[in-house]
Amino acid sequence: MYFASDNCAGIHPAISAGLSAQGSGFTSAYGTSDLDREVELRFGEIFERDVAVFYVSTGTAANALALTLVAKPGGVVFAHREAHIVVTECGAPEFLSGQLRMASVDGPNGKMDVNQLRRQVEELANSDVHGGRPVAISVTQTTESGTVHSLAELDAIATVAKDFNIALHMDGARFANSLVSLGCSPAEMTWKRGVDMLSFGATKNGCWCAEAIVLFDPSKASELTYIHKRSAQLFSKSRFISAQLNAYFCNGLWLDIAQHSNSMAKKLAETIAGLDSNCARLTSMPQSSEVFAIINIQTITAIRAKGVIFCEWPASPDFEIANDEQLCRFVASFATSDEDISCFHGVLHTAAKQLHRSVQC
Amino acid sequence: MYFASDNCAGIHPAISAGLSAQGSGFTSAYGTSDLDREVELRFGEIFERDVAVFYVSTGTAANALALTLVAKPGGVVFAHREAHIVVTECGAPEFLSGQLRMASVDGPNGKMDVNQLRRQVEELANSDVHGGRPVAISVTQTTESGTVHSLAELDAIATVAKDFNIALHMDGARFANSLVSLGCSPAEMTWKRGVDMLSFGATKNGCWCAEAIVLFDPSKASELTYIHKRSAQLFSKSRFISAQLNAYFCNGLWLDIAQHSNSMAKKLAETIAGLDSNCARLTSMPQSSEVFAIINIQTITAIRAKGVIFCEWPASPDFEIANDEQLCRFVASFATSDEDISCFHGVLHTAAKQLHRSVQC
Amino acid sequence: MYFASDNCAGIHPAISAGLSAQGSGFTSAYGTSDLDREVELRFGEIFERDVAVFYVSTGTAANALALTLVAKPGGVVFAHREAHIVVTECGAPEFLSGQLRMASVDGPNGKMDVNQLRRQVEELANSDVHGGRPVAISVTQTTESGTVHSLAELDAIATVAKDFNIALHMDGARFANSLVSLGCSPAEMTWKRGVDMLSFGATKNGCWCAEAIVLFDPSKASELTYIHKRSAQLFSKSRFISAQLNAYFCNGLWLDIAQHSNSMAKKLAETIAGLDSNCARLTSMPQSSEVFAIINIQTITAIRAKGVIFCEWPASPDFEIANDEQLCRFVASFATSDEDISCFHGVLHTAAKQLHRSVQC
Amino acid sequence: MYFASDNCAGIHPAISAGLSAQGSGFTSAYGTSDLDREVELRFGEIFERDVAVFYVSTGTAANALALTLVAKPGGVVFAHREAHIVVTECGAPEFLSGQLRMASVDGPNGKMDVNQLRRQVEELANSDVHGGRPVAISVTQTTESGTVHSLAELDAIATVAKDFNIALHMDGARFANSLVSLGCSPAEMTWKRGVDMLSFGATKNGCWCAEAIVLFDPSKASELTYIHKRSAQLFSKSRFISAQLNAYFCNGLWLDIAQHSNSMAKKLAETIAGLDSNCARLTSMPQSSEVFAIINIQTITAIRAKGVIFCEWPASPDFEIANDEQLCRFVASFATSDEDISCFHGVLHTAAKQLHRSVQC
Repeated sequence: MYFASDNCAGIHPAISAGLSAQGSGFTSAYGTSDLDREVELRFGEIFERDVAVFYVSTGTAANALALTLVAKPGGVVFAHREAHIVVTECGAPEFLSGQLRMASVDGPNGKMDVNQLRRQVEELANSDVHGGRPVAISVTQTTESGTVHSLAELDAIATVAKDFNIALHMDGARFANSLVSLGCSPAEMTWKRGVDMLSFGATKNGCWCAEAIVLFDPSKASELTYIHKRSAQLFSKSRFISAQLNAYFCNGLWLDIAQHSNSMAKKLAETIAGLDSNCARLTSMPQSSEVFAIINIQTITAIRAKGVIFCEWPASPDFEIANDEQLCRFVASFATSDEDISCFHGVLHTAAKQLHRSVQC
Repeated sequence: MYFASDNCAGIHPAISAGLSAQGSGFTSAYGTSDLDREVELRFGEIFERDVAVFYVSTGTAANALALTLVAKPGGVVFAHREAHIVVTECGAPEFLSGQLRMASVDGPNGKMDVNQLRRQVEELANSDVHGGRPVAISVTQTTESGTVHSLAELDAIATVAKDFNIALHMDGARFANSLVSLGCSPAEMTWKRGVDMLSFGATKNGCWCAEAIVLFDPSKASELTYIHKRSAQLFSKSRFISAQLNAYFCNGLWLDIAQHSNSMAKKLAETIAGLDSNCARLTSMPQSSEVFAIINIQTITAIRAKGVIFCEWPASPDFEIANDEQLCRFVASFATSDEDISCFHGVLHTAAKQLHRSVQC
Repeated sequence: MYFASDNCAGIHPAISAGLSAQGSGFTSAYGTSDLDREVELRFGEIFERDVAVFYVSTGTAANALALTLVAKPGGVVFAHREAHIVVTECGAPEFLSGQLRMASVDGPNGKMDVNQLRRQVEELANSDVHGGRPVAISVTQTTESGTVHSLAELDAIATVAKDFNIALHMDGARFANSLVSLGCSPAEMTWKRGVDMLSFGATKNGCWCAEAIVLFDPSKASELTYIHKRSAQLFSKSRFISAQLNAYFCNGLWLDIAQHSNSMAKKLAETIAGLDSNCARLTSMPQSSEVFAIINIQTITAIRAKGVIFCEWPASPDFEIANDEQLCRFVASFATSDEDISCFHGVLHTAAKQLHRSVQC
Repeated sequence: MYFASDNCAGIHPAISAGLSAQGSGFTSAYGTSDLDREVELRFGEIFERDVAVFYVSTGTAANALALTLVAKPGGVVFAHREAHIVVTECGAPEFLSGQLRMASVDGPNGKMDVNQLRRQVEELANSDVHGGRPVAISVTQTTESGTVHSLAELDAIATVAKDFNIALHMDGARFANSLVSLGCSPAEMTWKRGVDMLSFGATKNGCWCAEAIVLFDPSKASELTYIHKRSAQLFSKSRFISAQLNAYFCNGLWLDIAQHSNSMAKKLAETIAGLDSNCARLTSMPQSSEVFAIINIQTITAIRAKGVIFCEWPASPDFEIANDEQLCRFVASFATSDEDISCFHGVLHTAAKQLHRSVQC
């Protein structure tokens, strides 16, 4: 029962098979093979327009290099206070962009309060040189809280970017999970909303290592080519990523995997929802593959002892959490099975009964 | 007949099988899985001492981050004028180290003239703050010219580093090819010579993507941990690299592959050596998997038309090359077969005969 | 009546005379002249210990380079949310350090809430590599709100730095004003409290351009030498700064100037304190050369029309400010005269009477 | 007899007087005072077109920030192998631009061989992403060898820049000395030749500290504004530089000073030229304020003992220098007097006689 992260699963068998199938034969290197080009065109079909695609080693690299493309001296990027680029990348976006600063914006459920965002961008836009200047907004879809921005919410954020003539970046480390959650097209969730650069993550959704920057304005590709190489991100045997993505996109596998993960998360959530709230309660019903719950510490100990693996999560001002409780995160992936859920159900409900008894004593 | 680069081959079947075998099940991420730890220990056995190992996406990243570890404000790294870090990395070492400059040192056959190296290091060491200060020497083994430094040559370079109390880095993008060429142990070719940090490349020797920084002083690992992450090089599913290296090291596969490539290169060279020097001549007998030859332009056209794929190489002051000649590079890999060599032999000797006839006319 | 900033005054006549007196004759350059050395020794006497001194062009440079000395990959500096390094330096500390991030800490009156500071430092110190690591705390003395930390308040901040083994930097752009306000010695306000690096500002206190980094551990000077030069801050005719500081320190001139500015500010504040609070009210009695007051917008217009020059200041959560009011800042300097204050008194009280009448109507 | 550098002189009395005259009264800060604006307009008159002017602390800062304006990822700047930006700035241009690399071009007399320059630029322009790309050429006028490019030589360099569509920067640390040497107008020596950005140095020509970046395309000023501030180069009391330059430009003082220095250098050279070449010989007749001579080591010792102060200079491949000889540099400035020259003449000729005698023995 491994729910610590979707990073802890391996590779989906169909993607593994697709990768192995490309292991022999010779091709040109550094992103120039036929397969590389085919996959880039496939991205174009999926997003319904010409795009430029750059493979990178990590989601952190995708975020950092996408933002570097719009970086300017004194430039500031606005993102939610819990965004990966703000708190979980060890300063990589600042470092790799050579200059950008991240400005954190408050808001519940992993989403920026759009009025607050507008105020902060406006204040900086009106400041003199000492303050710097806004250059981009970064929105995370799926958010770090497991929530999904509606298209209307994305529109509201995009309007701020447009009004101040700055770029809009989307951190899509769990892009597919949001997509199937909203039931919209990739185009509708991105450039039709005003997104300029997308960090397209496939690693968490069943690949070994397949992260890409997608530029919706391919005329900027030539500039990113240099940013990409001088950041040491130009893979030689790039086909090893293309091979994964080729299988990933084949027959909608990527959406099937995301759908699977989301529904496993839903089942997991329902298991928690069935308990007394003193023992465990959801922060909300999951919208993607992540479940957040506030759990009694005794229960945490009990289910860990039975082999349930998951993460304690930093307390958020969004929730009221008692001293003997802890915010926890559970993540489903392609590798999560009905059997995992069923086992979890058993373990959790047993622990809940124990707690109930101990409280009664 | 694909001799353009060892980057153009895919993955060795045994490594592919090893990778697939690790595709299922859950493990912890970010370099903390059991397999990650096992492979790090395996590196320690191979190098006969405790080492710290960091996976990175590219050889460029390995070089840049290894050098960043010893970077100081005003710092300068000395390397051969044709070294990858000097001319083929788009400024990545300078950029990712935040400050280092590369000083290029002349010398024939891809090797620094050690007297010249000493003079240049000494001059900078004696300069005032305006000049900066030396911080490292970087030696490439196998060199960009396909040659291999002898242990005595490495000693001579290491002595300069020691005399000026600066670090010694080895760019080992084709490490295994040198190792089998010298017939020495990994320890003898590295830390026993004075190497502090090694860029250990396995991608060119049959992996998909398996590059690592090996630190011979593991006490510096904690610092590199932050350099590594803020450079966006911390893979989440790190086991995908461990799985490749696990198979790579199993039963000496890595040395067998390098031995194969080197001997294919030798056969390829013998094919060229058998020709009239007006048509094609070796710059020297190969010491590793790369063959450099000066070839008549008509012959180049003729063998390309027959499907031989290889690179024209920038002219070097080391060789006399006529106007109707061109320096060319051929690289063998795990995927190079006796059949490739035999085909190449046929095509080349036919072209040579044609040239002979045309010259006679 | 020019109260916009102490930057708007020129140079104190005695410092100007001292500068002119050093204009002829030859000396060695780049910080090596006899006068440069004398002034460095003078700093040592003033601070009662050996120090290393580096001249820089701006307070921003002093802050940025002092922090660079303790920068590490992934490093974070903690400072008040209104600190100059956080909001008024266009990202210079981040940029010039190559990597540092600024973490902003809340607290009233321009001072960090020390419990909040401790929590934030502790959280980052306990985080994994994704979060980064704390490397320094920066305290501003005089604060951006014109307040002065007591020695006990400095001790409390220094204790956090010590507990987490990180550096303590003091931004002393208005160092002298705090010093005379507290009536303590330079040593007591700095290294005896635990300050490691000081940005020593003299420009705002009557010099043309005299900013210095003071290192209380001079063994780190050799490293800063390179940071300083590669940041383009090594003045050739360094004696032009030494000449200013030589006069500045002569017979305690620097303290006399600061005393003068502080008492002018006090008089200015008393003028405001005498008014009806609907018209204008102090945020608090000034502790240094800066006066902050909340003023009715009609009054602002009226006194501006009469030639009073000052700055509107960004609203702070510390104060309740009505819609028809505005936070304003007035700064006194060596050039502020009793006549300026007396004029200001007349203009302000006339404007207050007008307002009183208009409100009655 | 202080000929070590023009940096070792103080400030010209007329400039000192002009500076003192601006010491009282209030003005706005950060480059916005009336005097700041007047001096910028004065630059426009001098250069016969609208220009944007940014004050910086050092010539190194001027060079680095001017080049930053045209920096791009992977970008390379071409300059003479002895250029200040290449060997004397501790990596500041690389560091402050966040990315640029310097490529050194050979050529005698401190001037790039223009054919060699074209070959190097062309090779990089034709390279793939691994090599990077050319972004600028930097020419030093007066060169580090004291020579002056003719207008035709500047044209030849500018043509290379134009042909490859890259920027042309001029390092004018000793701009005025070249100007009076050529007898042309500032416009003719800069933008009429194709110069885009000029590092305008006045410090060496009689100011305390007055270095400026002059942009001949003022539409780029808004970008440089941010580069300038985030590099910590925005002086608060900017009028202290304007006041110097105001006096500097008044009645052609700047040209008079340069003319004086150049003629003092000529006299100094004539003193050397009168000697036996075994004792001392000029590398060439000076074109500006610097004299380079190859001097016998005994003579060096002898004249130093008599109080002649000057620098030994790194040997250049341009000259044949015996083992008992040393290349030396003598620099004249506003403060060099006929009496200094006359004293030098006496001391040198006495030393020459001693040498003559010792050689005869």
